[in-house]
Amino acid sequence: MRARGIHHLGVAVHDLDEAVETYERLFGAELEHRATLEDQGVEAAAVLVGPSRVELLSALGEDTPVGRFLARRGPGMHHIAYEVDDLHAELARLDGEGVQLVDREPRRGLYGLQVAFIHPDAVHGVLTELVTSA
Amino acid sequence: MRARGIHHLGVAVHDLDEAVETYERLFGAELEHRATLEDQGVEAAAVLVGPSRVELLSALGEDTPVGRFLARRGPGMHHIAYEVDDLHAELARLDGEGVQLVDREPRRGLYGLQVAFIHPDAVHGVLTELVTSA
Repeated sequence: MRARGIHHLGVAVHDLDEAVETYERLFGAELEHRATLEDQGVEAAAVLVGPSRVELLSALGEDTPVGRFLARRGPGMHHIAYEVDDLHAELARLDGEGVQLVDREPRRGLYGLQVAFIHPDAVHGVLTELVTSA
Repeated sequence: MRARGIHHLGVAVHDLDEAVETYERLFGAELEHRATLEDQGVEAAAVLVGPSRVELLSALGEDTPVGRFLARRGPGMHHIAYEVDDLHAELARLDGEGVQLVDREPRRGLYGLQVAFIHPDAVHGVLTELVTSA
């Protein structure tokens, strides 16, 4: 077994405050983190639904990855993230198997995580993130 | 806290066998269940990625919910499901709050589960399922 399970579901939203309130009201979610990554043009709020994490993502501008996603597809599920123990090793393994990667090297994600994305074409249309907190 | 966490991520795919193989190879997933719901026009395979469940969904025909989703949006994330203890009570509560529901009463899902869907317009574009195994 390589992946340790779902780390979070990433959801693109127009209004972050409204989305947090919706998840609190509908699912009893609790706010865990809130952060802005200026260089990636995103403001994010992580909410916990029971033990599970939903990462709500809003765009800092139209010409950002989340901004373009919202313009193209509207709000909705953006990516799924799985936690792995050794992100470097997983990326090397996947790259060696010819899996199409967005990131061949880990990069800084939200909340101090190291992250890398697998191209959706390699995962039946699902933008998939690997995350390690190590 | 009302929802007990993510029960599964639902993903629409063109080829179920290929998708199962992809999740095994990329994420070390293990097949948990495989079933067909003729009346809903879907064949599904549940795979476990660590402790987390991904429900891979293929259409039995074009004029089915998953078939129409695939024609409109292509393969990708279809819905997220949260587990709840008392599905009847949750639906009554949400309905009482004016939340737009697809199903006001639980119906039979895969693998003997009782399920109900919340309309994506009520959850910032995310088709959301509530599930109980009780």
